[in-house]
Amino acid sequence: MELRILGCHSATPKPDEYPTSQALAVKNRWLIIDSGEGMQMQLRRYGVKFGRIKHIFISHLHGDHVYGLFGFLSTLRLLNRQTEMYLFGPPELKPLLDTVFKHTQVELTFPLHFRPVEGDGFRRISDEKDFEVYAFPLKHRIETHGFLVKEKPAPRKLNMDAIRLYPEIGIWAYHNLKAGKDFVTEDGRVIPNEELTLPPPRPRSYAYCSDTAYDPSIVPYIRGADVLYHEATFAEADRDLAALTLHSTARQAAEIAREAGVGKLIIGHFSSRYKDPQLLLREAQEVFPDTELAYEGKQVIF
Amino acid sequence: MELRILGCHSATPKPDEYPTSQALAVKNRWLIIDSGEGMQMQLRRYGVKFGRIKHIFISHLHGDHVYGLFGFLSTLRLLNRQTEMYLFGPPELKPLLDTVFKHTQVELTFPLHFRPVEGDGFRRISDEKDFEVYAFPLKHRIETHGFLVKEKPAPRKLNMDAIRLYPEIGIWAYHNLKAGKDFVTEDGRVIPNEELTLPPPRPRSYAYCSDTAYDPSIVPYIRGADVLYHEATFAEADRDLAALTLHSTARQAAEIAREAGVGKLIIGHFSSRYKDPQLLLREAQEVFPDTELAYEGKQVIF
Repeated sequence: MELRILGCHSATPKPDEYPTSQALAVKNRWLIIDSGEGMQMQLRRYGVKFGRIKHIFISHLHGDHVYGLFGFLSTLRLLNRQTEMYLFGPPELKPLLDTVFKHTQVELTFPLHFRPVEGDGFRRISDEKDFEVYAFPLKHRIETHGFLVKEKPAPRKLNMDAIRLYPEIGIWAYHNLKAGKDFVTEDGRVIPNEELTLPPPRPRSYAYCSDTAYDPSIVPYIRGADVLYHEATFAEADRDLAALTLHSTARQAAEIAREAGVGKLIIGHFSSRYKDPQLLLREAQEVFPDTELAYEGKQVIF
Repeated sequence: MELRILGCHSATPKPDEYPTSQALAVKNRWLIIDSGEGMQMQLRRYGVKFGRIKHIFISHLHGDHVYGLFGFLSTLRLLNRQTEMYLFGPPELKPLLDTVFKHTQVELTFPLHFRPVEGDGFRRISDEKDFEVYAFPLKHRIETHGFLVKEKPAPRKLNMDAIRLYPEIGIWAYHNLKAGKDFVTEDGRVIPNEELTLPPPRPRSYAYCSDTAYDPSIVPYIRGADVLYHEATFAEADRDLAALTLHSTARQAAEIAREAGVGKLIIGHFSSRYKDPQLLLREAQEVFPDTELAYEGKQVIF
């Protein structure tokens, strides 16, 4: 997987600090997660091909996570896109889009399949050939969901050095070998799959949690994720403010990462009150050392 | 006046090419003309203080001229703005904003006075101490208006060298002198104003025409403007396409500038089909030599 942070700033943007949006590459697809204003320019800047995007996930309907969606979809129309697009988000996103497009005279050239994301619990919202996406509730001022993107296991790899020892194994048998099946010779002898194939790369997973108060109930949903993005709007000194606004401190994000045993934590969505996010990084690393700061354009390959 | 081009690209943006928005400084105010996506980041980049903005003018409701308005107004709320804002635009802008703010939970902290701009003819839509703004219809696929911003004449300047020759002229008389009145001594002698004051700087004016087909009927409205911004989406080779989409060619923009006798023409809103806008510049300059290309960040002081 490859994660590209397109923007990670809290609501008031500065020059070159865009509100929240991310692109996640899974095999040959790009998934968009949240769509803050300016997302389409950022996609262009970082070379994310529009044609490889078929899925957009919106966590909640605060403007700094969704105001970039209108322009992006309008641009796809101008580019005469024909390929369908899947859009996941709060139920109200549909009437919002309909109204904006009605007043601004946008008629899409492609099918936009809207899939409302609502309610409690952990559930699969997308099931594709190479990956699946789960949604789970976060704790914010309005209905908000986090997302877990999981690669599906790839087929096993053929061990050609081993296969060559058995002339009776033709190309016709490769499909079943990749699927993990043993090879059975004409005289009934079983050659175990493990002898003929190598294990595929371990499937990767990515968890996204923004915006949310500290909420340990999400830990089981994101357990063992390779990378966790978790908002960290405030420093510990402003813990009360975090509780009041239903945001997290950097330390709280790190506590979630530690409890969930993730591989790496990326924190972002910093309040503009902190001139230097290093303070937030230090506070998180005290609890979870493998923490990194999100910044615009940051690329994480895992 | 000072014009800052925040974005001038046709609808599909590229990295560092933002859709249409402009900021115009008149005395100590900034007027916003159109609000393409990313406008608020651009205002920050070019040092346009949000607190000096009290007027926003939207020419029409195509997304590349208005999708940056939602984020900008939301940010003002986060900054706890209290000062009133005047918003001018098509009548449908009001329900559009209301719907977006309802679904994205935005409650403004400041009075937003909406002033619908509609109908035909040339009329004053804003009358401030230092300037006035007029709207006039353009010819586009949906209702669209151009704007003319005119400085009001400044007071005359005191000619202190001349005034010192008349001891009877006290400070109490300066206000009337600046307003152009003659001075009358106690014994009834008239000292003409021209002797005591110097003419103020000539009031400047700025005309904005985007998006529009070639339409010479606007010439009387913008006659003699110091600077005219006029869209130039197409080259002459695509004149038919310009007519079809109700846009202008660069040459047509130059014809308007020549007929109106403006001081300078700035062309923008180029279709992304032209790799190099120099072609459009050359075609315009053949008709109106004092033509310049708009580009992001361009500053014009006049």
